[in-house]
Amino acid sequence: MASSPVTAAVLIVGNEILSGCTQDVNLAFLGQRLGALGIRLLEARVVPDIEAEIVEAVNALRTRYSYVFTTGGIGPTHDDITSECVAKAFGLPLIVNEEARRRLSARYRSPSDLNAARLRMATMPEGAVLIDNPISAAPGYRIGNVHVMAGVPEIMRAMFDGIAPTLAGGPPLLSRSIETDLLEGYVAAPLGDLQKDFPAIDIGSYPFNRQGRFGCRLVLRGTDAEALAACAARLEALVKRLGGQGKWEV
Amino acid sequence: MASSPVTAAVLIVGNEILSGCTQDVNLAFLGQRLGALGIRLLEARVVPDIEAEIVEAVNALRTRYSYVFTTGGIGPTHDDITSECVAKAFGLPLIVNEEARRRLSARYRSPSDLNAARLRMATMPEGAVLIDNPISAAPGYRIGNVHVMAGVPEIMRAMFDGIAPTLAGGPPLLSRSIETDLLEGYVAAPLGDLQKDFPAIDIGSYPFNRQGRFGCRLVLRGTDAEALAACAARLEALVKRLGGQGKWEV
Repeated sequence: MASSPVTAAVLIVGNEILSGCTQDVNLAFLGQRLGALGIRLLEARVVPDIEAEIVEAVNALRTRYSYVFTTGGIGPTHDDITSECVAKAFGLPLIVNEEARRRLSARYRSPSDLNAARLRMATMPEGAVLIDNPISAAPGYRIGNVHVMAGVPEIMRAMFDGIAPTLAGGPPLLSRSIETDLLEGYVAAPLGDLQKDFPAIDIGSYPFNRQGRFGCRLVLRGTDAEALAACAARLEALVKRLGGQGKWEV
Repeated sequence: MASSPVTAAVLIVGNEILSGCTQDVNLAFLGQRLGALGIRLLEARVVPDIEAEIVEAVNALRTRYSYVFTTGGIGPTHDDITSECVAKAFGLPLIVNEEARRRLSARYRSPSDLNAARLRMATMPEGAVLIDNPISAAPGYRIGNVHVMAGVPEIMRAMFDGIAPTLAGGPPLLSRSIETDLLEGYVAAPLGDLQKDFPAIDIGSYPFNRQGRFGCRLVLRGTDAEALAACAARLEALVKRLGGQGKWEV
């Protein structure tokens, strides 16, 4: 019997993403990694550094999905307010985590380097379980089903590597994709029929235009390897029948 | 007297973004362009190709913000369901827009090329006002305060260029940013004080690590040019006082 799928949402915190000042790359990373762990990423939200917005988003997402992963807003500056907001969302007191304080102390040369601003990076909801930061010491943490991580991609990735083994997923999402020179408008009808024949496979079509060379990339995703292989064989035959060139991506 | 700010949300539709198969670049583009038009982008959501999720997000966002901009899901294939969902969200019938059909017809060599799948690209909520697509003809549209655009970045950008003059914004958001070799932990306290002195300027701090060269980028944003200049002068003095190198970005 199939159990209900394990789901996730990503919450990206930061004015810099909404202003277009910074190009987010964390969502694509998390989408790929979660898929490989058999966790379906079903939603992402980007919110500004405004307390009410962050609190509302944390609560909307944590009650709806198995896991929530937040990125950004856990540094030492005034615009880093994610921890206050997560504590408020959970109705938990915000306290200095002694192990986090110890890790920060160990990183700095003199005790005075752990100033009030930096101590904010050890301040988190009571009961938080630390997430290691092998790059710059200041930890992330998990509270309930919410994983609070850094926004700097290099640090976020290292944090995710640390928690990945603790996440309970389902069967990993497998995918195959074929690039063709066929126009979407011609592939659409038979592709829709193929989708009906393989309801457990998620079939996506993504048109491209590379310097005037048009075509589409057809992506198959699912957890059933046998169904995926059968669907791929049908897709390859379909592309050939329509007179297209098709190249499976590796 | 200041009028209430003009706000916006972006709704990104597509499994490919959540799976990490495709890296979104539309959000950063829209964030920059909306800011320049004096429209505050306050939220972005990414949802999968699931009707209920798209309908719910459209309604949540259109009732909350001055403008909504959607990207993705208006092509000819079975996974392109944005128009059905937008019609449902507004409670409007889904009809073939005759002008959209004419534009598609004009693009194809023979009448049979406008097949049923492609005709879906002319099918939209009744009352939709077309958004030009100078790249591949198939138009986007506006219905109420929701602008429905393509997901392919090149086409989305062309569509946005077309509608930009129709958007009523406020004073444009101005910004200045300085890159420094100071660590966030040292800048944090005086930067927080500076923020208190300039409540109308949004001050952000973004740490970086470039091959072991650490520092942070400090960004000032606001609509008041005089306040921005005064804040920038104070920030430059602050960086100097802390012994840092600072370079304004152009």
